[in-house]
Amino acid sequence: MSKKRQKRAHKKAGLSPGTLIYLGEQRTESVEISVFDFDKENLDMRQLATVEDCYPYRDSPTVSWINLNGIHDTSIIESIGSHFKLHPLVMEDILNTTHRPKIDDYNDYLFLVLKMAVLDESSKNVRYEQLSLVIGSNFVISFQEVPGDVFKLVRERLKNAKGRIRKLGSDYLAYALVDAVVDHYFVVLERFEDRIDALDDNILQNPKPKTLKEIHFLKREIMGMRKIVVPLREVVSSLRKTDSSIVQEQTVLFLHDLNDHLLQVIDALEGTRDSLSNMADLYMSAVSNKMNEVMKTLTIIASIFIPLTFIAGIYGMNFEHMPELKWQFGYPLVWIVMLSVCIGLIAFFRRKRWF
Amino acid sequence: MSKKRQKRAHKKAGLSPGTLIYLGEQRTESVEISVFDFDKENLDMRQLATVEDCYPYRDSPTVSWINLNGIHDTSIIESIGSHFKLHPLVMEDILNTTHRPKIDDYNDYLFLVLKMAVLDESSKNVRYEQLSLVIGSNFVISFQEVPGDVFKLVRERLKNAKGRIRKLGSDYLAYALVDAVVDHYFVVLERFEDRIDALDDNILQNPKPKTLKEIHFLKREIMGMRKIVVPLREVVSSLRKTDSSIVQEQTVLFLHDLNDHLLQVIDALEGTRDSLSNMADLYMSAVSNKMNEVMKTLTIIASIFIPLTFIAGIYGMNFEHMPELKWQFGYPLVWIVMLSVCIGLIAFFRRKRWF
Amino acid sequence: MSKKRQKRAHKKAGLSPGTLIYLGEQRTESVEISVFDFDKENLDMRQLATVEDCYPYRDSPTVSWINLNGIHDTSIIESIGSHFKLHPLVMEDILNTTHRPKIDDYNDYLFLVLKMAVLDESSKNVRYEQLSLVIGSNFVISFQEVPGDVFKLVRERLKNAKGRIRKLGSDYLAYALVDAVVDHYFVVLERFEDRIDALDDNILQNPKPKTLKEIHFLKREIMGMRKIVVPLREVVSSLRKTDSSIVQEQTVLFLHDLNDHLLQVIDALEGTRDSLSNMADLYMSAVSNKMNEVMKTLTIIASIFIPLTFIAGIYGMNFEHMPELKWQFGYPLVWIVMLSVCIGLIAFFRRKRWF
Amino acid sequence: MSKKRQKRAHKKAGLSPGTLIYLGEQRTESVEISVFDFDKENLDMRQLATVEDCYPYRDSPTVSWINLNGIHDTSIIESIGSHFKLHPLVMEDILNTTHRPKIDDYNDYLFLVLKMAVLDESSKNVRYEQLSLVIGSNFVISFQEVPGDVFKLVRERLKNAKGRIRKLGSDYLAYALVDAVVDHYFVVLERFEDRIDALDDNILQNPKPKTLKEIHFLKREIMGMRKIVVPLREVVSSLRKTDSSIVQEQTVLFLHDLNDHLLQVIDALEGTRDSLSNMADLYMSAVSNKMNEVMKTLTIIASIFIPLTFIAGIYGMNFEHMPELKWQFGYPLVWIVMLSVCIGLIAFFRRKRWF
Amino acid sequence: MSKKRQKRAHKKAGLSPGTLIYLGEQRTESVEISVFDFDKENLDMRQLATVEDCYPYRDSPTVSWINLNGIHDTSIIESIGSHFKLHPLVMEDILNTTHRPKIDDYNDYLFLVLKMAVLDESSKNVRYEQLSLVIGSNFVISFQEVPGDVFKLVRERLKNAKGRIRKLGSDYLAYALVDAVVDHYFVVLERFEDRIDALDDNILQNPKPKTLKEIHFLKREIMGMRKIVVPLREVVSSLRKTDSSIVQEQTVLFLHDLNDHLLQVIDALEGTRDSLSNMADLYMSAVSNKMNEVMKTLTIIASIFIPLTFIAGIYGMNFEHMPELKWQFGYPLVWIVMLSVCIGLIAFFRRKRWF
Repeated sequence: MSKKRQKRAHKKAGLSPGTLIYLGEQRTESVEISVFDFDKENLDMRQLATVEDCYPYRDSPTVSWINLNGIHDTSIIESIGSHFKLHPLVMEDILNTTHRPKIDDYNDYLFLVLKMAVLDESSKNVRYEQLSLVIGSNFVISFQEVPGDVFKLVRERLKNAKGRIRKLGSDYLAYALVDAVVDHYFVVLERFEDRIDALDDNILQNPKPKTLKEIHFLKREIMGMRKIVVPLREVVSSLRKTDSSIVQEQTVLFLHDLNDHLLQVIDALEGTRDSLSNMADLYMSAVSNKMNEVMKTLTIIASIFIPLTFIAGIYGMNFEHMPELKWQFGYPLVWIVMLSVCIGLIAFFRRKRWF
Repeated sequence: MSKKRQKRAHKKAGLSPGTLIYLGEQRTESVEISVFDFDKENLDMRQLATVEDCYPYRDSPTVSWINLNGIHDTSIIESIGSHFKLHPLVMEDILNTTHRPKIDDYNDYLFLVLKMAVLDESSKNVRYEQLSLVIGSNFVISFQEVPGDVFKLVRERLKNAKGRIRKLGSDYLAYALVDAVVDHYFVVLERFEDRIDALDDNILQNPKPKTLKEIHFLKREIMGMRKIVVPLREVVSSLRKTDSSIVQEQTVLFLHDLNDHLLQVIDALEGTRDSLSNMADLYMSAVSNKMNEVMKTLTIIASIFIPLTFIAGIYGMNFEHMPELKWQFGYPLVWIVMLSVCIGLIAFFRRKRWF
Repeated sequence: MSKKRQKRAHKKAGLSPGTLIYLGEQRTESVEISVFDFDKENLDMRQLATVEDCYPYRDSPTVSWINLNGIHDTSIIESIGSHFKLHPLVMEDILNTTHRPKIDDYNDYLFLVLKMAVLDESSKNVRYEQLSLVIGSNFVISFQEVPGDVFKLVRERLKNAKGRIRKLGSDYLAYALVDAVVDHYFVVLERFEDRIDALDDNILQNPKPKTLKEIHFLKREIMGMRKIVVPLREVVSSLRKTDSSIVQEQTVLFLHDLNDHLLQVIDALEGTRDSLSNMADLYMSAVSNKMNEVMKTLTIIASIFIPLTFIAGIYGMNFEHMPELKWQFGYPLVWIVMLSVCIGLIAFFRRKRWF
Repeated sequence: MSKKRQKRAHKKAGLSPGTLIYLGEQRTESVEISVFDFDKENLDMRQLATVEDCYPYRDSPTVSWINLNGIHDTSIIESIGSHFKLHPLVMEDILNTTHRPKIDDYNDYLFLVLKMAVLDESSKNVRYEQLSLVIGSNFVISFQEVPGDVFKLVRERLKNAKGRIRKLGSDYLAYALVDAVVDHYFVVLERFEDRIDALDDNILQNPKPKTLKEIHFLKREIMGMRKIVVPLREVVSSLRKTDSSIVQEQTVLFLHDLNDHLLQVIDALEGTRDSLSNMADLYMSAVSNKMNEVMKTLTIIASIFIPLTFIAGIYGMNFEHMPELKWQFGYPLVWIVMLSVCIGLIAFFRRKRWF
Repeated sequence: MSKKRQKRAHKKAGLSPGTLIYLGEQRTESVEISVFDFDKENLDMRQLATVEDCYPYRDSPTVSWINLNGIHDTSIIESIGSHFKLHPLVMEDILNTTHRPKIDDYNDYLFLVLKMAVLDESSKNVRYEQLSLVIGSNFVISFQEVPGDVFKLVRERLKNAKGRIRKLGSDYLAYALVDAVVDHYFVVLERFEDRIDALDDNILQNPKPKTLKEIHFLKREIMGMRKIVVPLREVVSSLRKTDSSIVQEQTVLFLHDLNDHLLQVIDALEGTRDSLSNMADLYMSAVSNKMNEVMKTLTIIASIFIPLTFIAGIYGMNFEHMPELKWQFGYPLVWIVMLSVCIGLIAFFRRKRWF
């Protein structure tokens, strides 16, 4: 993923900062815009046909959540940006999908960038899509890179007027959205842990190079996820301590809770990483153990039969004057000698606990 | 354990924060509620039949310790919560058994989450059960995930009116409870150290893969325990420095002492982890040493007998014109040559200190 | 590279600080001086014949960018230094190409040292050339070690009057120059990642020592780049927080953005370093896996044929009294015995899953 | 050592904090109490028969050093504690020999816990015994776990009235005691370094598993010592910065010096640890080098003689129609072939630089 | 080196702090004392016969640099100390050559301890000699453990009145001395790097244990140097930020520059350490690669000839009833079989890319 990021960023190298260029993958579908406008009593939810339809929500007294699915149409971002008076750098950052999570305080609004984890069901891999949030005093605009179902349960809660979400302001709504993103991290973590469990079973019995490759792959994924989560925790932390008037007192406690969840994710990631390191060690040990076993087998068989073959070789010589050959008990005696050597060596190996 | 934690947390993903859902294992036994109500002179201890019976203790002038064994009945938590005016997030956190140790100051009361180490006598493993403490100015409510005997000695001290516990307030009682939890960590540590000692003995003589697996298992357990203890130390540390009126001056010294104990636990955990790392190294070295020995044996035997077999092979050839074969001293001379080769090689290996 | 650095620095050992001695490679071409003098409406760009031609720009009200390609002519640095009243240490630092990125605030001007990454197309390697910037309130003087095309797009933007660059002051111009340098880091990173990708493919199939050497080479390059980028981030960070009057409020936001880019570079470098470590591990594992395979082959073949050879050897003995030899079914029976041994051993190895 | 510590601490688990229980090894000898009472002119030194004899020194204007050899008699600690008005936790800490070095300021007196390194001459090992210091404005009480001669030179200096020790107050006396403890660390370090030097000599020639075990043992000892010294440095550091009236201005400079000594110890410990790590690496490398040599020997001998044996085997076959056998020059020619093979292989191995 | 340090320090164990005892190696030559007394116009340089001759320079208005070559004569240190009113601990520190770099501010003067790197041309090793500087407002006294030529260029600059050194005060002179010491570090570094380069060439072709030993030796030297340089940087850093009146404003910029140089040294040391780690890895890899090659050779030769020998063995058996033996084409057919086996195995090994 880091690679893709660089590649994209490169496209923009040398351009004037603030130039609006979309750095994600090119898409052809049109950008969906939906709005949830609500207060304690009423909820108005609709799909918007044009970007201009969302303009009135800027100044409505109710809380409005404007969600854009897709950011590949720069003209839409531009018109929203100019109507909602967003700073050029904000618009640039929305389009630049290579950002690490961050928060910027522009007085009139807060600007958050975070990453949603998306499980790709076909390839079993995880992608991270950028989510940008502009949080005004009475609106939240969310820019999703691709449509997804992370926010499904938030929508339900809005519809059912369940919990505090309809009673509190835009800051709580933003909190709920970030919380949904964080909750999704747990789902992804679980998926990783299932893959690790699958590995664990046969690492000692049957160590294969592709097991190690999987271990390294998972380690890299875990580290990649950590790089998304740790800065997000900093974001939440500075949101808790912000002196922006947008974040109200009663929301701070929930941010505190969100912070705890992120710490839990980080703890789990670190635990998982340690497990993977241990597994890599176990793998190496299992490999060297197998080698040991192979060598022991060779040594035992060769050490027993090479001397015996030598003895047989002696009496295969064609010297004319070999008295043993004519002696009647020569052959049985050679057998006795050979059996003694054999038993002696086996006893020796047993004493060394080789088998 | 980290896995279990994720699994549980996932169940809650997407729900409104503050929703009361128990995330631990399902249990069927009913929740026991007991109360110790005391001042310097009197002690009133009883089992309560219903949750409502504990309501009066909120406002009694004496210090009350209300202990709940089991948190799987959300209705009980809810009714206590509403009577004692606990914040919804506190109630949620009591039920969410996946939290790392933490402290929250809600002005009227302090809320502590910590983990009790429980030795499972059958499987010899350690489980961590959550303990939540709500510390008011004249009461402590403790929520235990499962019944346990960690607090047995605290109860004794309360009954015997021994030490300061009956003379000081709810803050000292809470300290005594946390102290009991920390004391129990030492018991668990000792158990781990016994297992490590058992390993140590035969690691050089007889390195087996399952030894390494045990080393890794213990390392993971030690690291897991460290993740419980380090945040607890932060909790105790911020309790010492709190400006909450609930923590009184004379208790601070005891918290200082508790802090020292936790530092001792952390030191011991780090020492144990280092020992385990050393043992893993020794294991790897012992394995490679064994390998060396095996290879040396093979090399010595093969290097001696392969050349001898060759010599024997020479005179096993059936050429018609081989003058040595007809020579009378051929056979004894071949023996002399073979013995010389043999002695020469043995001398060579000795000089190399191979045996 | 670190070596070269020391060598150069040594030349200067013991001299009085502030002595102007050029520490880079000797060059013969003359130093090119170019000027971009501009405000919102006008742009005057020209090559200067002599160093004195740039004197007037010190006090002109317009913003001037004076660029020197080459710093090997100390007399030029000296005359610029004395006219623009630069501190002797600044002039020394411009000439000393061994500096790590840094920023010094001399009240009247800011002095920045940074490193440009230059891809050497022939050897496929990266060199780092020093760029020194003197940022006055209405001018920027840039000292490049060698001519390069990193600033090409900045020049275009100046010519086209595109973006903010013509509207804002010298601080924004300096920002644009540093931003161009940072953008170029991404190009270099991409190059490294291509080389890593090329490695990745055949590391498991065909591990060769020179693969490991390449891994170590790339790791060192990555670490070397990190040592350039991390202090640069500190420079940008302290530029953001400076209380110098030269950096104006509206530029700070862009510096914030630049800081984010540098964090991205650092993240990518760390990810790349982790990948390389993983690859080194995989390499070692592939090597030991190959070894295993070799040993298994040897063991299987030797373990089967050595006992068989022994059996053949038995009946190659020349004893007169060997009843089996005269027995009619001796020969076929020996074949049966040998086949049984062979099959038995193969079964044994199969059960051990050796093949 | 960490084990012993846990075991002891466990004994106390669950008891009320402040309960006086001795956690060290049981001893039977009676506790010796000695006193040095001095000012610039006079010195009164005596052994005390009973603990009550030391009571008057609390309020005498001269500086008094009361030393207890042995802390296993809790009644003595208790009576001193109550007369000198020590906090119950101080008395508990004196008896709890499992503490890490620490300092507590109880206004009227400072309480220091540190560890004395004691060389056990018989087993060549190091034990750490606890030393507790109570520093009042005109007295120092030192509690030693066992009698020792660490303070011999301090006593001499007191007797000889040499240096500042008789001229300055109780804080300087306490400094002198801690300084004597630290000086002893150097003696212990030297002992460790002698053992390391003894190892170093034959690690490359003759790597044995017990060498590695010794390396790991020393590493653990070094790490154990580090865990004693680092917190002691913190103690000295906070003593330097204390605002307690007991520590006077002129003593602070000496504490600064003590701090430097501790830094030296820590530096030396880290250097020693690095040396041991290097030695472990060298050991592993020497082992694998030995292995290489063994394998080379086997390979050279086997690779030469196995083909030769095959050739001999060919002409040992009993086919009736083998024209070579009847040929007169068959035998010498086979010898020539065999010698050529032999020389060819030796040349091959030489070219590979195997010997 | 750390060893020597401990040994020396031990000599002093238990003595009263401030006792003047020289801890370096005993020397017999007399201590040379030289003085440079100068202001902008005049320079008076001379060798002093007795220590009393330097007394007048304490109060002269000109800047005086008093240099002592050798500190083994404690009486000289003592008389200087008492005349210049140095604190007893300063005098002790001058004689104690085991100190790490440090700075102490005694108001009237600053006291610096640092280490000079001295290349021992015969053994090619580096020694570190202590340099102590006492910096008063108009004098600098430097105490060198042994005579050396590190300050040669500083003396030249004083004589030639080149640069600022004659114009500025004692603080600049001290800076110039420390700068000369730091410049010398680069020379030493270069020497190390030459040794590393010499190693690099044949590490892959011909890995020998003594190469690894050299790698570890250099690593230890690098780490040892780092332990000298890092605290020196702290010294320079606290000198920059000191509020002592001795350090004047214009010198601070030069200290800043010195700080940059030290950062460069530290960067280079870290780069070198990383290179050495990489080389150790490469060494291990080259060793295991050699092993692989050895094993492959053995396996190929043994795997081909052992089966062939078996076939030959078959027809070396002496059974009376072996029809093949009498068959006319038996012998050529056996050759065909053997060649097929041989070719088959070679094809097999080729397919596995073993050669």
